[in-house]
Amino acid sequence: MEGKAKTGISPTRTEDFPRWFQSVVRDAEVAELDHVRGAMVIRPWGYGIWELMQRALDDGIKATGAVNAYFPLLIPLSYFEEEANHVEGFAKEMAVVTHHRLEQGEDGALHPAAELPEPLIIRPTSETIIGRSFAKWINSYRDLPLMINQWCNIVRWELRPRVLLRTTEFLWQEGHTAHASAEEALEETRRMLGVYREFTEDQLAIPVFAGEKPEYERFPGAESTLTIEAMMQDGKALQCGTSHYLAQNFSRAMEMEFTDEDGQRKLCYTTSWGLTTRMIGAVVMTHADDNGLRMPPRVVPRQVQIVPITRDDPAPVLEAADALRAEIADQEWSGAPVRVDVDSRDHKPAEKRWEWIRKGAPLVIELGGRDIDQGVVTTTRRDDPELKRDAIPRDGAADAVVGVLGDMQTGYFEEASRRLRERTRSDITTLEEFREFFSGDETQSGGFVEAPWSEDPSTLETMGELGVSVRCIPFGAELPADARCVITGGAAKVTAVFAKAY
Amino acid sequence: MEGKAKTGISPTRTEDFPRWFQSVVRDAEVAELDHVRGAMVIRPWGYGIWELMQRALDDGIKATGAVNAYFPLLIPLSYFEEEANHVEGFAKEMAVVTHHRLEQGEDGALHPAAELPEPLIIRPTSETIIGRSFAKWINSYRDLPLMINQWCNIVRWELRPRVLLRTTEFLWQEGHTAHASAEEALEETRRMLGVYREFTEDQLAIPVFAGEKPEYERFPGAESTLTIEAMMQDGKALQCGTSHYLAQNFSRAMEMEFTDEDGQRKLCYTTSWGLTTRMIGAVVMTHADDNGLRMPPRVVPRQVQIVPITRDDPAPVLEAADALRAEIADQEWSGAPVRVDVDSRDHKPAEKRWEWIRKGAPLVIELGGRDIDQGVVTTTRRDDPELKRDAIPRDGAADAVVGVLGDMQTGYFEEASRRLRERTRSDITTLEEFREFFSGDETQSGGFVEAPWSEDPSTLETMGELGVSVRCIPFGAELPADARCVITGGAAKVTAVFAKAY
Repeated sequence: MEGKAKTGISPTRTEDFPRWFQSVVRDAEVAELDHVRGAMVIRPWGYGIWELMQRALDDGIKATGAVNAYFPLLIPLSYFEEEANHVEGFAKEMAVVTHHRLEQGEDGALHPAAELPEPLIIRPTSETIIGRSFAKWINSYRDLPLMINQWCNIVRWELRPRVLLRTTEFLWQEGHTAHASAEEALEETRRMLGVYREFTEDQLAIPVFAGEKPEYERFPGAESTLTIEAMMQDGKALQCGTSHYLAQNFSRAMEMEFTDEDGQRKLCYTTSWGLTTRMIGAVVMTHADDNGLRMPPRVVPRQVQIVPITRDDPAPVLEAADALRAEIADQEWSGAPVRVDVDSRDHKPAEKRWEWIRKGAPLVIELGGRDIDQGVVTTTRRDDPELKRDAIPRDGAADAVVGVLGDMQTGYFEEASRRLRERTRSDITTLEEFREFFSGDETQSGGFVEAPWSEDPSTLETMGELGVSVRCIPFGAELPADARCVITGGAAKVTAVFAKAY
Repeated sequence: MEGKAKTGISPTRTEDFPRWFQSVVRDAEVAELDHVRGAMVIRPWGYGIWELMQRALDDGIKATGAVNAYFPLLIPLSYFEEEANHVEGFAKEMAVVTHHRLEQGEDGALHPAAELPEPLIIRPTSETIIGRSFAKWINSYRDLPLMINQWCNIVRWELRPRVLLRTTEFLWQEGHTAHASAEEALEETRRMLGVYREFTEDQLAIPVFAGEKPEYERFPGAESTLTIEAMMQDGKALQCGTSHYLAQNFSRAMEMEFTDEDGQRKLCYTTSWGLTTRMIGAVVMTHADDNGLRMPPRVVPRQVQIVPITRDDPAPVLEAADALRAEIADQEWSGAPVRVDVDSRDHKPAEKRWEWIRKGAPLVIELGGRDIDQGVVTTTRRDDPELKRDAIPRDGAADAVVGVLGDMQTGYFEEASRRLRERTRSDITTLEEFREFFSGDETQSGGFVEAPWSEDPSTLETMGELGVSVRCIPFGAELPADARCVITGGAAKVTAVFAKAY
């Protein structure tokens, strides 16, 4: 029989990690696949998390000087024909609009009518359309750099959809920049990866490896793709954000030219970078436990949830709960007022407590007549594996909250960092050990291997058999002069991080 | 020859209002139609305006207790078949997705491949999909009211596209709520119209008529549609936001039921309400003048623009400009720090000044060596029709800014209110006068007529000939006992506001 947590989550992580993930996402009311195969509804609790992520990342992006704009959802098919690598990478997953009205047929049913002169593609990414606008707007070196970001929805037809991780439609931001020189564009590519890394570590409490993708994993049309890679609790990697140096590949296809200071017409150098709603999934798979979500306080819609325990005469308890709420809301943490609310719904208090534990609220405070008489409040910290109730003095409660939030933000990051450290093996030197490490259960993986790699095409086959890929060539990793490739035993060219991945 | 403003805008409002509108929107870099017929690029300046609108309206929506969520872009065709009025209203403008990949044909070109088993519609509005999720989530009266809002993109195929006003794709928010009783749902419908009214008047400085749409202008499937209607500078009406009482029409089609306190299963009563990016167009057509945008300070991305006048030695001027910027940014107005920046781009100062005037920045401050020597700054207020330069003491400049912003926000609202008052005629009593009033130039209209109306179907024909419609039955308008319909001369049932409209 499968384990069932007090919050109702089933199965546990060790029983079946992928099904546990789905249960948490469903039972914590984060998101659900529904309506159309692979399509996702992001429920209010999940969307509240996304809104906080957006606010923090948007601040980080704007601090670099980029501004937001919005470009059309539908892209003419012909726009994709000029960048061959790009279209090859996306053609298999493009949703195509062919008609622009419905008409009732003789059978009484509705049918597509009014065929479009040219099919339109729902954007799988917007380089081809934003680049064409850039080409119109850029005239002189004075117009550079041009740095634009867009928050929008994206459609890529997924044959094996998974909620939050791989959905036919997802939300993201995509940044697109144009520069006068390769150096500037490369610097921008690195800068934005830094913004992603800071966001992921500081806001989501998820430590990452930062590095460059091997050539075979590059974004279609890019000359270099930088990535941050996190380790989920099952040891698998999740790509968290990517930043691409596109050189002149797209500017050439779209004639994105400028007149330089020397009077010459030159092609721009461009970059693009994106981060998606899959990061909600990353938070779940990094921090959640068998009782449901555990949320880093910076990105949880409700940091403190007060549950009033009312019996015969609810008025004094509700009044006390509201006074406590007001006091806590007056506290500031991490640059904003503490997000706190009283759950006054007509449900049993114990059910409410478990619901907020399941949803990952950092602190649940129960407050009943007895607590009031004794001058205490009853707290449950979400980072306590036992979920013990703890009575603390009412008088210092609002102050105490701020300390708990800080502790928890740091604690979750440290816990995940420890896992990343402990489960990243850098002592694996032979193919035999490599095979052994990666031949565990299909749904569990030992973790990451950091080892020398020859970049030899033959290694892709070996990795393919094991379901492993090179996640990145990490920045700053040293390669001993005589290093041997962990797969071929031949001369190594780089140090790589290998893992199974989502 | 057409008039050309100092900022380069052409023609003027009186020469050709529709073309003037297009010029302002283009030359102030707000938005442009591009790439696909009827599709719009919202440029950074325009999108910055939209972001401020979103922030303010989102706060207003959340203050009512609604929360944000996200639902799929693509809706199965079959979802539309159950609410006949609804589909009839939208079938003519639906974009249809029929395939989910591209393949290279023998001709070498890309063609749609992999036909979907059922066509998918890009949402023209989301009642049919959100309602189905509601039906799953609502079980008991304890789950009500359910109040959800979504910020997203919408596609409605427009045969006569106009930038910002009528585009194939636009951005909006759509709220959807479910309630246990008709009274509650009606109250919600009215409450949200109030939120729109407050937003439009307080943030956008646009006065409106609030009221109910006549039956023939209702949202497809609604039992009642409430609206706010503003008057543009050419006297035409623009519908600014609508709130619909859907009764049980959608809950019946989608089996949106709940178990009430009495144990009975009952159908919910629902509402929906939306406001779109056309409001950017409303701001332009309400406040802009022959020199370009004039922006209400609350929704302008840059409230104060500093233009340094640098000659031989730019360093001291740039330093002084930055000190002034910091001082102004320390000021708070309308609950937020003043949005101020230094335009240090490599362009001529005069060009920059005209650019910010054209874009509607409330205050442009020029600062050069001579100003510094004299202890002054040179200001241009956007609400001054002469755009005079005015030297004010450097020392009080930061304080003065706050006063100017407040004056301008109020001033623009008063100016628009005066126009609405003066050009709303309530003394028109005969069809002859009515015809006379509305038979002006095609692109200019006298304004609004507030007059008794019989609701007789025959009046629609007369209105149709004149290109006039009933914008709303305004709340609280009194109808004298013996009032006669302005069109038929028969007994009147209501007082209506008539106008040409966008």
